[in-house]
Amino acid sequence: MRYEELTELARQLRVDSVRAADAAGSGHPTSSMSAADLTAVLLAHHLRYDFSDPGNPANDRLVFSKGHASPLLYSLYKAAGAIDDEELLTFRKRDSRLEGHPTPLLPWVDVATGSLGQGLPVGVGMALAGRYLDRVPYRIWVLSGDSEMAEGSVWEAVEHAAFEQLGNLKLIIDVNRLGQRGPTRHQHDLGAYARRLRAFGWHTVEVDGHDVEAVDKALGEAVRVEGRPTAVIAATRKGRGVAAVEDREGRHGKPLPDAEAAIEELGGPRFVRVEVEAPPAARVRRVRDLAPLALPRFEPGTREATRTAYGHALAALGSARGDVVALDAEVGDSTRTEYFKEEHPDRYLEFYIAEQQLVAAAVGLQARGWVPYASTFAAFLTRAHDFIRMAAVSRADINLVGSHAGVAIGEDGPSQMGLEDLAMLRSVHGSTVLYPCDANQTARLVAAMAELDGVRYLRTSRGETPVVYGPDEDFPVGGSKVLRGGDGDRAAIVAAGVTVHEALRAADALAADGIPVRVVDLYSVKPVDVETLDDAARETGCILTVEDHRPEGGIGDAVAEAFSDGRPAPRLARLAVGGMPASATPDEQLHAAGIDAESIAAAVKLLVGRGVAP
Amino acid sequence: MRYEELTELARQLRVDSVRAADAAGSGHPTSSMSAADLTAVLLAHHLRYDFSDPGNPANDRLVFSKGHASPLLYSLYKAAGAIDDEELLTFRKRDSRLEGHPTPLLPWVDVATGSLGQGLPVGVGMALAGRYLDRVPYRIWVLSGDSEMAEGSVWEAVEHAAFEQLGNLKLIIDVNRLGQRGPTRHQHDLGAYARRLRAFGWHTVEVDGHDVEAVDKALGEAVRVEGRPTAVIAATRKGRGVAAVEDREGRHGKPLPDAEAAIEELGGPRFVRVEVEAPPAARVRRVRDLAPLALPRFEPGTREATRTAYGHALAALGSARGDVVALDAEVGDSTRTEYFKEEHPDRYLEFYIAEQQLVAAAVGLQARGWVPYASTFAAFLTRAHDFIRMAAVSRADINLVGSHAGVAIGEDGPSQMGLEDLAMLRSVHGSTVLYPCDANQTARLVAAMAELDGVRYLRTSRGETPVVYGPDEDFPVGGSKVLRGGDGDRAAIVAAGVTVHEALRAADALAADGIPVRVVDLYSVKPVDVETLDDAARETGCILTVEDHRPEGGIGDAVAEAFSDGRPAPRLARLAVGGMPASATPDEQLHAAGIDAESIAAAVKLLVGRGVAP
Repeated sequence: MRYEELTELARQLRVDSVRAADAAGSGHPTSSMSAADLTAVLLAHHLRYDFSDPGNPANDRLVFSKGHASPLLYSLYKAAGAIDDEELLTFRKRDSRLEGHPTPLLPWVDVATGSLGQGLPVGVGMALAGRYLDRVPYRIWVLSGDSEMAEGSVWEAVEHAAFEQLGNLKLIIDVNRLGQRGPTRHQHDLGAYARRLRAFGWHTVEVDGHDVEAVDKALGEAVRVEGRPTAVIAATRKGRGVAAVEDREGRHGKPLPDAEAAIEELGGPRFVRVEVEAPPAARVRRVRDLAPLALPRFEPGTREATRTAYGHALAALGSARGDVVALDAEVGDSTRTEYFKEEHPDRYLEFYIAEQQLVAAAVGLQARGWVPYASTFAAFLTRAHDFIRMAAVSRADINLVGSHAGVAIGEDGPSQMGLEDLAMLRSVHGSTVLYPCDANQTARLVAAMAELDGVRYLRTSRGETPVVYGPDEDFPVGGSKVLRGGDGDRAAIVAAGVTVHEALRAADALAADGIPVRVVDLYSVKPVDVETLDDAARETGCILTVEDHRPEGGIGDAVAEAFSDGRPAPRLARLAVGGMPASATPDEQLHAAGIDAESIAAAVKLLVGRGVAP
Repeated sequence: MRYEELTELARQLRVDSVRAADAAGSGHPTSSMSAADLTAVLLAHHLRYDFSDPGNPANDRLVFSKGHASPLLYSLYKAAGAIDDEELLTFRKRDSRLEGHPTPLLPWVDVATGSLGQGLPVGVGMALAGRYLDRVPYRIWVLSGDSEMAEGSVWEAVEHAAFEQLGNLKLIIDVNRLGQRGPTRHQHDLGAYARRLRAFGWHTVEVDGHDVEAVDKALGEAVRVEGRPTAVIAATRKGRGVAAVEDREGRHGKPLPDAEAAIEELGGPRFVRVEVEAPPAARVRRVRDLAPLALPRFEPGTREATRTAYGHALAALGSARGDVVALDAEVGDSTRTEYFKEEHPDRYLEFYIAEQQLVAAAVGLQARGWVPYASTFAAFLTRAHDFIRMAAVSRADINLVGSHAGVAIGEDGPSQMGLEDLAMLRSVHGSTVLYPCDANQTARLVAAMAELDGVRYLRTSRGETPVVYGPDEDFPVGGSKVLRGGDGDRAAIVAAGVTVHEALRAADALAADGIPVRVVDLYSVKPVDVETLDDAARETGCILTVEDHRPEGGIGDAVAEAFSDGRPAPRLARLAVGGMPASATPDEQLHAAGIDAESIAAAVKLLVGRGVAP
């Protein structure tokens, strides 16, 4: 396109952004208007994308990190012929796929945005896929706002992109000077951004973001740079083109005061249609099925840590499936992903101590068709909570594995203990939460995870636990195992992970005292096995949950929820980590927290004797 | 001290670190040994601290961000005469206050560390207190590892410290080249760190971290620099001084293989005692009581958003108490902290879009005696989950306020909706979780929060809700309000926030249909009002919870937990946001999620009619 046409296109994008927000009665037209020239040039001259085939593996990717500029994104889709004007005006209305912030309900949106500072780290994941896994020369274009450069997650990504020499990653920063409530820290000081990015090893280009010729050259330069990521840092004006709002405070996140006048001022509606360049043909080299799955097998009666079983199982899964990728945050010797690395170094990605980037990369990788397993300490997955939450909005299929669960880690103390992870992961929409107690169970669940939808979480333990299951036992997701029990059980102990073994010891002691109890291994915390819990409730009358986790949000809540559908509930009691642990041995920790065999037996006695739990 | 003595002191610190870890059988001696020279010089020549009076407001602060180097910290305490050798050797043992990672069980530890990348952001909070609030020239010394520079939270802090010209903040980076599982990204490239920090506006000094004379000069330079933060970037060797471990991989986080030989190699035990310089006398200017509290009063029957009531109440609290500080992450116009800013600009701190730094600063401020209220969207508090978790380990007293709760925000869509926040905050040890439904209730709870211990959370709503309480009503934490009810109630609806109003409408409709129901406003989600719930259970036989939150971890779980102590439970059912919302109006959202009056009434009818919930 000639530069005059690009300017026309940009004006159309502004007009359509104003119209969409006006029709919706809400939205962010001013944040759209600042980036209209940038994205007009990108769409018309630099993006290689087949809108009729969004799954084309050679397509560039466009991540709108400033997701609130959704009117602009949808106006771009309209200009590309992907949606029509009628649909554009459904923006933010019920049942429209044009949501307030973009989600993959639209086939051209790979990941949801709207929580700022996520687009670049997710883009890093996609770029890693392109450079190291797919080995296809697609480019990842990320449009970022200037405000969101304050998010630490952005700098995790900046560091990692340079370290990994992601020349296929192109960041466009729309420096429109104004955040939500006022000026940003650096306002129009483009150099402030450029200096920082260059110090991390990026190539930078500073440009007037409203000069389409200059923007075209800047994006062209970005395309040509190889071997390192490039940022095009563009000075723009929020609300550009409409004097009543341009570069003014107090105009964030609302329709223009007089849309009709604004459209007039912008020169009225236009009907520019862009032919977006299709990508050159390319194929990803990925082979899904490599070999039959040969999971590790552990001898019942021996002892092994579930984290160790995880590492071996993941390595085995990687040998069977060519699409499995392991990610870690500099603790692969602890999480045991190092076993995967040894066997499949080409599909192992190290993120150093940057958990947000770790999870964001998993989201980016799955958007390119890979099956990521991202691991770190369960406690430190809390760093990535917002990314996990947004992964669900992205309808992302990712596997997360948190090791060092609970007080059972021992001496390291509470900073290292995953004690809130079940609560966090249970609350994620569509998630699966698994918590194995032995090595064979772990191995089977690691393989099962790969087949599920959504965010799947596996919780592993640091210390060795007895192998109680045979290697051929099935562990359906949503199931549980009754490890002790029969007619006449006076209570059911529901446990998972390390507390299963404490429950078994308690059950044996109680049986010796003439109190038969049932032990349920609730390895699937979400979804939960309602049927088995129902049986236990009906047949024993009371259920005691025991967990190495805070009392809130974990197994106790999961079991209570199973009885929260209006049926008569059994008597319920729970043992969990109520206090703040300090340093002690694992056994001392379990005892101090009141979740060891002795505490369980005492609680059951209270429960069956007097109907009052401790 | 002469340099020879400093070297002796550093050797003593190494020996004691080795001894402590050896006695414990675990711990991180090699990570301690790398920083021994740095901290020896700091303690003997630059730190101004009265160990006999850790509460002295003029004391410098030392934040051991690399908390796993706790053997070194405790060895420093011993060298300063704060603990004796006998206590040093209790390291990591049950009932010892020398935990695996430092916590404020020790009077000289202000904040817990051990989750890497938190020390600097917390230090920024302390430095902000020193520069802008206390106006006392204490210095904040942060000892950081090199691995943790990968955490985005560090760069949020780097940016903010420079922007706020925190000349009182002195960062020492122990660049020992090795992370947990191997080399860091930049290994011994000090310039990589220096370039980045300088680009953000820091003063940097590069130094050989084992040359005590050079270190002394570097720290002296750091002391003299004003107007901007300084980083002393020190090249060190992990395990320094013991050939078997020095600069070797695979030696992280474990005692030395032969402690006796190592101590011998280090020259054997020493008995250097350091007289730490006391700070110059200073007083903080803080006045706690300024005026009687005059909370805003809202007229019953009018409508107001609870977020708006929060803003006015916080401003009023700030007028009454001089120790209250408001913090926000660039959304003060949405959270309504802007009302506080208008009245108390000197106690308002803007963190831009950096939620980890926001919460970390709150932790730092409370460590200096301030009462922080940190606000952002509830959804975005998930960014700071790890900081909130660690705040509990720090025994920090902080107020967090999350606005824009639930689907009730309407068109913006799921990325902006706080739907997991109750689960996150309930699971935090010792937390309080409050969720008001009207403006007067909000105002009272805002004031009540300030008096509580631990992490306190207030959840506010975007849209206006009817004022249903008078301005003089009391709302004790741990209480609830029965808004409808009497003899013959056939069910109890337990709600909070926006769903209270839906429940009231449902109750009126049900009453008209001849089905009297109770409505409980559960404004205190944690602790929960067990007595009122018990009454409701006993008198109605079934309880329906309704919440604008995910089904997991919120009000439904809180109510179920109230009946999880072995007592016979009532029939329970819950309505919550089970699906993934898109864009729609607030009313449409509540209806689509099945938590509006109509859905509630239908659920109650099923519950009382056939005993089966939807």
